[in-house]
Amino acid sequence: MGVAPAPSDAVPSSSRTGPGPAHWLRVARETADDLATDAVARDQAGKVPFDEVSRLRESGLLTLLIPAELGGGGADWRTAYAVLRRVAAADGAIGQLLGCHYHLSWSAAFLTGSARAERVQRESAAGLWCWGGGVARQEPPLTLAETGDGHVLNGRQSYVTGVLVADRLAVRAVHADTGEPLAVAVDPDRHGVVIDGDVDTFGQRLAAGGSVECDAVPVAADDVLGSLSADEDVLSPSTALTSPVGRLVSVQLCLGMAEGILSEAREYSRAGTSSWHPAGPVCSPQDPHVLTAYGELTVVTRSAAALTDQAVEALHVGLARGEDLTYDEYAEISVLVAVAEAAASRAVQECTSRALDIIGARSASSQLGFDRFWRNARTHTLYAPVVHRLRDVGDYFLNGAHPPFVLPV
Amino acid sequence: MGVAPAPSDAVPSSSRTGPGPAHWLRVARETADDLATDAVARDQAGKVPFDEVSRLRESGLLTLLIPAELGGGGADWRTAYAVLRRVAAADGAIGQLLGCHYHLSWSAAFLTGSARAERVQRESAAGLWCWGGGVARQEPPLTLAETGDGHVLNGRQSYVTGVLVADRLAVRAVHADTGEPLAVAVDPDRHGVVIDGDVDTFGQRLAAGGSVECDAVPVAADDVLGSLSADEDVLSPSTALTSPVGRLVSVQLCLGMAEGILSEAREYSRAGTSSWHPAGPVCSPQDPHVLTAYGELTVVTRSAAALTDQAVEALHVGLARGEDLTYDEYAEISVLVAVAEAAASRAVQECTSRALDIIGARSASSQLGFDRFWRNARTHTLYAPVVHRLRDVGDYFLNGAHPPFVLPV
Amino acid sequence: MGVAPAPSDAVPSSSRTGPGPAHWLRVARETADDLATDAVARDQAGKVPFDEVSRLRESGLLTLLIPAELGGGGADWRTAYAVLRRVAAADGAIGQLLGCHYHLSWSAAFLTGSARAERVQRESAAGLWCWGGGVARQEPPLTLAETGDGHVLNGRQSYVTGVLVADRLAVRAVHADTGEPLAVAVDPDRHGVVIDGDVDTFGQRLAAGGSVECDAVPVAADDVLGSLSADEDVLSPSTALTSPVGRLVSVQLCLGMAEGILSEAREYSRAGTSSWHPAGPVCSPQDPHVLTAYGELTVVTRSAAALTDQAVEALHVGLARGEDLTYDEYAEISVLVAVAEAAASRAVQECTSRALDIIGARSASSQLGFDRFWRNARTHTLYAPVVHRLRDVGDYFLNGAHPPFVLPV
Amino acid sequence: MGVAPAPSDAVPSSSRTGPGPAHWLRVARETADDLATDAVARDQAGKVPFDEVSRLRESGLLTLLIPAELGGGGADWRTAYAVLRRVAAADGAIGQLLGCHYHLSWSAAFLTGSARAERVQRESAAGLWCWGGGVARQEPPLTLAETGDGHVLNGRQSYVTGVLVADRLAVRAVHADTGEPLAVAVDPDRHGVVIDGDVDTFGQRLAAGGSVECDAVPVAADDVLGSLSADEDVLSPSTALTSPVGRLVSVQLCLGMAEGILSEAREYSRAGTSSWHPAGPVCSPQDPHVLTAYGELTVVTRSAAALTDQAVEALHVGLARGEDLTYDEYAEISVLVAVAEAAASRAVQECTSRALDIIGARSASSQLGFDRFWRNARTHTLYAPVVHRLRDVGDYFLNGAHPPFVLPV
Repeated sequence: MGVAPAPSDAVPSSSRTGPGPAHWLRVARETADDLATDAVARDQAGKVPFDEVSRLRESGLLTLLIPAELGGGGADWRTAYAVLRRVAAADGAIGQLLGCHYHLSWSAAFLTGSARAERVQRESAAGLWCWGGGVARQEPPLTLAETGDGHVLNGRQSYVTGVLVADRLAVRAVHADTGEPLAVAVDPDRHGVVIDGDVDTFGQRLAAGGSVECDAVPVAADDVLGSLSADEDVLSPSTALTSPVGRLVSVQLCLGMAEGILSEAREYSRAGTSSWHPAGPVCSPQDPHVLTAYGELTVVTRSAAALTDQAVEALHVGLARGEDLTYDEYAEISVLVAVAEAAASRAVQECTSRALDIIGARSASSQLGFDRFWRNARTHTLYAPVVHRLRDVGDYFLNGAHPPFVLPV
Repeated sequence: MGVAPAPSDAVPSSSRTGPGPAHWLRVARETADDLATDAVARDQAGKVPFDEVSRLRESGLLTLLIPAELGGGGADWRTAYAVLRRVAAADGAIGQLLGCHYHLSWSAAFLTGSARAERVQRESAAGLWCWGGGVARQEPPLTLAETGDGHVLNGRQSYVTGVLVADRLAVRAVHADTGEPLAVAVDPDRHGVVIDGDVDTFGQRLAAGGSVECDAVPVAADDVLGSLSADEDVLSPSTALTSPVGRLVSVQLCLGMAEGILSEAREYSRAGTSSWHPAGPVCSPQDPHVLTAYGELTVVTRSAAALTDQAVEALHVGLARGEDLTYDEYAEISVLVAVAEAAASRAVQECTSRALDIIGARSASSQLGFDRFWRNARTHTLYAPVVHRLRDVGDYFLNGAHPPFVLPV
Repeated sequence: MGVAPAPSDAVPSSSRTGPGPAHWLRVARETADDLATDAVARDQAGKVPFDEVSRLRESGLLTLLIPAELGGGGADWRTAYAVLRRVAAADGAIGQLLGCHYHLSWSAAFLTGSARAERVQRESAAGLWCWGGGVARQEPPLTLAETGDGHVLNGRQSYVTGVLVADRLAVRAVHADTGEPLAVAVDPDRHGVVIDGDVDTFGQRLAAGGSVECDAVPVAADDVLGSLSADEDVLSPSTALTSPVGRLVSVQLCLGMAEGILSEAREYSRAGTSSWHPAGPVCSPQDPHVLTAYGELTVVTRSAAALTDQAVEALHVGLARGEDLTYDEYAEISVLVAVAEAAASRAVQECTSRALDIIGARSASSQLGFDRFWRNARTHTLYAPVVHRLRDVGDYFLNGAHPPFVLPV
Repeated sequence: MGVAPAPSDAVPSSSRTGPGPAHWLRVARETADDLATDAVARDQAGKVPFDEVSRLRESGLLTLLIPAELGGGGADWRTAYAVLRRVAAADGAIGQLLGCHYHLSWSAAFLTGSARAERVQRESAAGLWCWGGGVARQEPPLTLAETGDGHVLNGRQSYVTGVLVADRLAVRAVHADTGEPLAVAVDPDRHGVVIDGDVDTFGQRLAAGGSVECDAVPVAADDVLGSLSADEDVLSPSTALTSPVGRLVSVQLCLGMAEGILSEAREYSRAGTSSWHPAGPVCSPQDPHVLTAYGELTVVTRSAAALTDQAVEALHVGLARGEDLTYDEYAEISVLVAVAEAAASRAVQECTSRALDIIGARSASSQLGFDRFWRNARTHTLYAPVVHRLRDVGDYFLNGAHPPFVLPV
């Protein structure tokens, strides 16, 4: 019917030249269904996700955020977020890989001036590039030094996503002379670039994480994408939106994983026709405590989803305001995202621990692989402690304090 | 600005002949501010709220839901809900009084055929009536017996709202012959009607609750408002919407009370400039635990608000569909309301207990009257146990079961 | 039987000259039963508790902690704690009054040298004194100035317990010359002492709280009870035990109030034979959610009780060690008390809010007065924020840090 | 010192002929320290735990519960429980293996008449047997049929512990003629016995779980250990204690795992001297939120430990009463165990999810293996849903109902 749309389909249609949100959601659904069929086996095998990236590439989802006139899918972040959530429900690690790709490839264009932004997007679309890397602050940083005819990059960026499978990397480097932090694009095939798959987290194992080591790697002027300074003199509120854009990627992954385990738990719960199983107690889907438990997890997940929808809408309005965006408006968007982050982190942690109670002891089978939801969610949420977000939210609503002005995530 | 509207102003404007949502929200705000000035003293005095009803009557809020062409304010439920939430933030009991009035006066027209619905609304608007009563099932019920030239009403309805101040009552009576439950309007000044203020709850003390006893009270045919049967053969999905309409009244009261105490806590927290008070520890609004606590309560309240907004929108669409509404659509609306009920009940219970920690020991002063929020909220939430709602939510999303088809609340 | 004693009777018997723990517990039970009969009415009347103190005086409970050879009951703190918990279960405010009396009268002897300690205890026992007051730090403090032939006391101590009914006061005063904080006994009948019942908390209303104002009140040398300095050079670990002794008083009040509402809820739940009540839904004591809710509240309360028993035992051992007590031992006792405080505060807050769900809507009746448990508990717990205790516990077990060395509570 | 003993050392010494509790706790500590050194690697390798059983055998811990005069360690359950908790802190799966061994080998003697009990214990001690199996009800059951000169066993028992490494099995079989459920000892080397390691849970992977299939296995009269009937006509309260004995094994495993992760988190937290790590945010052990989080987890774990100590003491008293134990006494012991089960299940679930927040993002490293605590605890707790225990606790304290009289666990 439609008195209320299903949460993850809540993407308003709009006229654009690409195929439109409904198309992308259908593609996301198909891709997610495909990823779900062997998610447990792929997680246990732990292979570098070349095959998974191929599936994403063939689906067309990689170019979704690039304007149609530049060869891309012509969708906006609202659609990209809905796609991420659907993919993360099936496979949290591949959701992270795709989310990182969206954030880095979009930032590469957003931080750059217009002509260069067009070029990087055209190339990205034409080559069906998958981006990897990350631009978080690290110590010691990569350094970018000027040479006679360009720049060279030296140093190491660790714990970055997707680098084992990326066609193009984006990293953070500090300018050797000025100390300014910069986003830099790097071709992983360049001489002097060494990729190491040294991320060994117990969750999100298929996100192709690792480190990028650069030994005198030449960098063309065009590949210096823009400043990452969080200094208010340099950073405009508009540019600062790359932070909430990225944090909402993280929120969508949480929501997707929470919805994913609730969906699998429902499926297995209904499949359990017998009241007895040698593994131990089987929960009846009619048991009042099972019903209230599923009700609670549903309420907590839909709460986070509703807050996220509000934050996405506010971000959408904010992005459309461009350079007119004020500091107060930026602060409000950033806090709405923080509210969603807090709720989504709670939701995914509760769901991935407690949803197994819906099914009972047989859910501990490693063949069903329910533990991967917890391992993925716990790994992911450790990177964004909810207590910091709650502090920002409290300080804004209690004291009117703006959240810290950080770039990037 | 407006990247995101403040939650309680989230009423879409629409063209109608009444003064519009913005007007009513301004009036609600003024009325709430007025009620807030002496809320503690009025709660402690515990007098029958004639004065408070006068304030509501003078503000024009009583006729808000009646179509403009019948002499009313011409607003819809979305506006009425926003008004209730604002009033309840200042005074939960008066919020309940007004919410009961809205639900009963609207039901009186909704359940009745069109010509009689017009008349009852015209009279209600012209007389600036305040409605009281309630149509919940009770044992033994009031009975409506046919006489030669009409009906007579006998029996007692207990624990109903607003009866001490009502200009017109709506009660539930069972037809003596057919056993059908009916909603019946009663003029409290009629001979044979005795109102007793025997509700002595520790919270919501100004909601003018009590009982209505009828001793052979004559009832005109027009005052039999319609059937309250929950039998699926009798009740259409459309008529059944009176239940979610009423449950959303309750949700708005919870939200209002949660927002009310958060707002007062913020005000007092900021006012507390000294770090020391003879009553004991004063919490600094910069203390990290105060910030995260306020953040948590904000997230839980905004969660409930976001879910409520979704439910209100779905209800709005459902009401507009009239007799075309299907059982599945009704079930979906009812479950969305149940999700909002669960979240709002949690929010108000958490906020009214924990918000005092934001301030510290001086918040225990009876002059500040913070305990009235807990007493009001606890009294209110005891009437709608959240565990039943969670069960409905779980059964719908886990098993696809429709929530029980009850009328009314 | 006795595979396990009921928690609040868990006082080991020991040979002493007084009547023994079993006697005092029986007296406490009778006194509590007596207080329970009109607890709701007395709370609502809010009169100064002269009558209640008479009941305590007649029961003999006031002198319980004074050695038998000095005319007292000859019991130790383990018995006193068990008595307090029983009394607080019936009436939290009278529990606070009695607990304050125990702590102050015991401290008056404990802080003083031996000969004077004997005298104050003999007088206290002979006169059946009820002590009131408090020795917490306040600004500006009372000052004690030396005169030619003694001392005079000036200033005001606010928010202290029992002062409206006390036969003898203990207050904190700063020595005018040395700045040392001292505990001073004051006869409330002395010229220059003005007692003001200006504590207006919404809970614990019968604890006879108020302020003590002193205008050049002469103080005899014997009435200067001892130093309250928290300076580690002055304060021995042994003397510092007055802090955990007092904090365990607070813990017993929490436990008593939690057990009190659970007990009343059980009684009313069983009394509710009908499944229907005009006030709204009545919960069946067989409903699975009622059973698990009562189970949860029982577990949380018994958890706190078990931790408290451990802390009481450790304190008992520590008191027996006298001046041999080391700083490390003091720290361990203090942290065990902090663990109990955190658990008891949680337990009483959960029980006093949620126990009403066991009964249903009729529990909102002000005649039953269930709200007094929440008002009493919330007022009490606001004075000892659990978050500080958790911080101490975490710092001790994570970092090995000693809890802050404060005297008194 | 000792104002309060460390929780897991809280085993009262008593005069017996064995080496005494202090010895066994020292051995348990050494064994646990040894198991801890390679726990992560062993869990990841997932090999059948022959080596681990050898370590237990060499330590002497396997015979701990057998009377000294029969060649065993001469300890009681209080010591065995303390040992289990210490071992489970280092390795939850080996804790389960050892706990299952204790419960089955003790039951084999407890359920049998005295002369045969002696023999099975002598053999068990002499052979340093490790017992495996399980006696829970399954469908279809193993059947025991009488033949001319003995019995034969047919059928399959699934999801039982330790069977891959056991020297002796105990299983449940139904008598083919009478239908009575019986505990039967089986030599795994007997012809017709097939052991299959088909338990593939994501946690407790080293507990050597699997199934026992019997094809016409001859059973000597002495190997029929006793009845497992839960019929009150057959089962005495004394015999019924095998259920709480076994449930306390499970409780000790939960406590051990909770204490284990808290201990490891403390160790890593203190080791983290740098405020920055490429994996992301590192939590400072001085951060107020880290302190309160560690405080909360400590309080919840010590709560469970304190309740468990009470239950163990009550069980100890109950076991000593032998056939004099009444139904009411049995019920009280069973409920005290249920209280401990509820608290311990909560504690271990909270600790294994939240303790990682103490450390921050680097705790997600699979080298540290913190996820094994969650996987082990979640697998274990799925077998004993806490909601059933809370229901029993609520029903006992609210309605005075005895917990269901089940044998065995």
